[in-house]
Amino acid sequence: MRWVLPDHIQDALPAEADKIERLRRRLLDAFRSHGYQLVVPPLLEYLDSLTTGAGQDLKLRTFKLVDQLSGRTMGVRADMTPQVARIDAHLLNRRGVSRLCYCGSVLHTLPSTLTATREPLQLGAELYGHAGLDADIEIIRLLAEVMRLAEVPASRIDLGHVGLFRVLAARAGMVPGREEELFDLLQAKDLPDLHALVAGVAEPVRSALLALPGLYGGAEVLDKARVCLPDDAEIREALDDLSRLAAALGDLPVSFDLADLRGYHYHSGVVFAAYGGGSPAALALGGRYDRVGEAFGRGRPATGFSLDLRELAVRLADVGQPGAILAPAGGDAALEALVAQLRSRGEVVMTELPGHDGSWNEAGCDRQLIRREGRWTVESLQGE
Amino acid sequence: MRWVLPDHIQDALPAEADKIERLRRRLLDAFRSHGYQLVVPPLLEYLDSLTTGAGQDLKLRTFKLVDQLSGRTMGVRADMTPQVARIDAHLLNRRGVSRLCYCGSVLHTLPSTLTATREPLQLGAELYGHAGLDADIEIIRLLAEVMRLAEVPASRIDLGHVGLFRVLAARAGMVPGREEELFDLLQAKDLPDLHALVAGVAEPVRSALLALPGLYGGAEVLDKARVCLPDDAEIREALDDLSRLAAALGDLPVSFDLADLRGYHYHSGVVFAAYGGGSPAALALGGRYDRVGEAFGRGRPATGFSLDLRELAVRLADVGQPGAILAPAGGDAALEALVAQLRSRGEVVMTELPGHDGSWNEAGCDRQLIRREGRWTVESLQGE
Repeated sequence: MRWVLPDHIQDALPAEADKIERLRRRLLDAFRSHGYQLVVPPLLEYLDSLTTGAGQDLKLRTFKLVDQLSGRTMGVRADMTPQVARIDAHLLNRRGVSRLCYCGSVLHTLPSTLTATREPLQLGAELYGHAGLDADIEIIRLLAEVMRLAEVPASRIDLGHVGLFRVLAARAGMVPGREEELFDLLQAKDLPDLHALVAGVAEPVRSALLALPGLYGGAEVLDKARVCLPDDAEIREALDDLSRLAAALGDLPVSFDLADLRGYHYHSGVVFAAYGGGSPAALALGGRYDRVGEAFGRGRPATGFSLDLRELAVRLADVGQPGAILAPAGGDAALEALVAQLRSRGEVVMTELPGHDGSWNEAGCDRQLIRREGRWTVESLQGE
Repeated sequence: MRWVLPDHIQDALPAEADKIERLRRRLLDAFRSHGYQLVVPPLLEYLDSLTTGAGQDLKLRTFKLVDQLSGRTMGVRADMTPQVARIDAHLLNRRGVSRLCYCGSVLHTLPSTLTATREPLQLGAELYGHAGLDADIEIIRLLAEVMRLAEVPASRIDLGHVGLFRVLAARAGMVPGREEELFDLLQAKDLPDLHALVAGVAEPVRSALLALPGLYGGAEVLDKARVCLPDDAEIREALDDLSRLAAALGDLPVSFDLADLRGYHYHSGVVFAAYGGGSPAALALGGRYDRVGEAFGRGRPATGFSLDLRELAVRLADVGQPGAILAPAGGDAALEALVAQLRSRGEVVMTELPGHDGSWNEAGCDRQLIRREGRWTVESLQGE
């Protein structure tokens, strides 16, 4: 059965493809109007550039290929964010702020959940060159605007801060391998294994690590965190940042999840996850990743978000578009002019091909061009 | 050097990405208005579906990957045409005509020429379900329209017919492996090796095969072909089709190349190559491939064309777009309303971030919003 696709891989047929295309244009236009310039990184890169700064999860999710020209290992991108950081760091070479956006397919060796696709259509916006919270505020507001434009307004935006985890892991004296294990357990909120892993960690860090997964909810979470996390300058600063961010975004449905470490390990500060449309899974993820540029020779502050455009597009309502108009083949100049005019007004006009009477409804036609008393008119398509 | 890309792989930076995006929309809109519905086939499929009906060249050009879910071999698409034929044959399941279009990246293991990319952005249109010349005429006219919209009007459209080659190869008694070799030699117009390969073939087929590479040029080519190709019903029919096609397309710069077998071996009838913009290489290729659907369980007549959108987009003239407008951060409600209005009019308005004075020109700003006597006005950006 040659037409069967691999699991977690799908075609988009006309109705879905049309929604994807409409939403793609709407969101890229919004990015553009906010000063985010489009870039198109390649599907393939050498593996070490693609997975730079990323954790084991991204490396395992990346398909590997041998480059027949160089013999080196290449990867098919599983995430475009490091590619865009490479473009900012090395190709644009700007002193000040750069705002970039992108939209393209990525591939995953394995789906992230039982229902996830292995080919998300990643769309995102990134802001480079500004370390202050103003950049994070702009990015989170832009995400909220994107969700509004996608007709799935954010019902909840969870804020977190990777700095809390980093400080606690460092104070627990974790070596990098164990730190990654700790990261994964927190991400999965796997309390039994978390208890086992931190059994030998000294107080107050042990209790703090165990408290993290419970620190989610409204504004009270930050007060609780100030009590149950160790008194540390970096931790205080991270919590203050989250307070200020929540205050600045007071009109959005902001909440907190201090154990939320989703994403691809490269995040370094504020992170966020946006929910909406009744979906239990986050529809967009983002945050700060100030260290990724270093791998490309130029450390730059960076913050941004990305989402699967296809996941959003399937939720888009069907618009009641009129059907197509069938035009007879070989008409006169008046017909040709009328067809051109109808098309320029946004109508779909398809030309009849001989021998297919009765099958034009199936192709989407509901009207036809007919000559009556020397004039071409549009009438509803009969007799099918 | 982690920022170095593999050979024949490129980023598109903002100026180029903007051209690609503008042209992409313009051409997909043209397809839509002519009744071609967009489909989005996946980047990955099982290898046997991707390369069905295709020759050795497409198979060699396809990157292979192991599916960790099934253990089967998958390929990254090197050509979207067979994917779209699969969608028509198996998923849409229409009795009558279907018109489909697509735009997406494909990957090649090796570049096709010294300067070719390994990641073309393939854009194309395909017409299924109609075997007559009317479909070929519509597709070639649509290609000419696409080139006009891309501001590279076709300077030459070469017509050929794969049927001529098939008949001659069959009459020469070539086994499939030798036929493929013959195909490649004709495609490369490699006369010395062609002479060697056909040395044992009986006349008049031997002379006919040797004559094919010389049969290119204007209308006189068909007359020559009627003389130097064997008298055969299928050959006559192919030449008559080319005559009728050229007559119907009299307003386009049509010529002939009867040894032109470019494409991916799956073509079965009329083929064409369109040139323009002073490029020695064809900018678009297409033709009839009536047999591909069979592999997906449903043989359907098919004709279409495709091109590398990126190759066309780089030729697009720069439009003198105005630069962006810089808006101060934290303005009042009047500023917010004005910014929203400017953006909805198509202007790019980016918000100032503190501490970057003097670097906004670099980000593309040439104007700024300034408050004068209680009113916000747009002025040119000074003092950078």
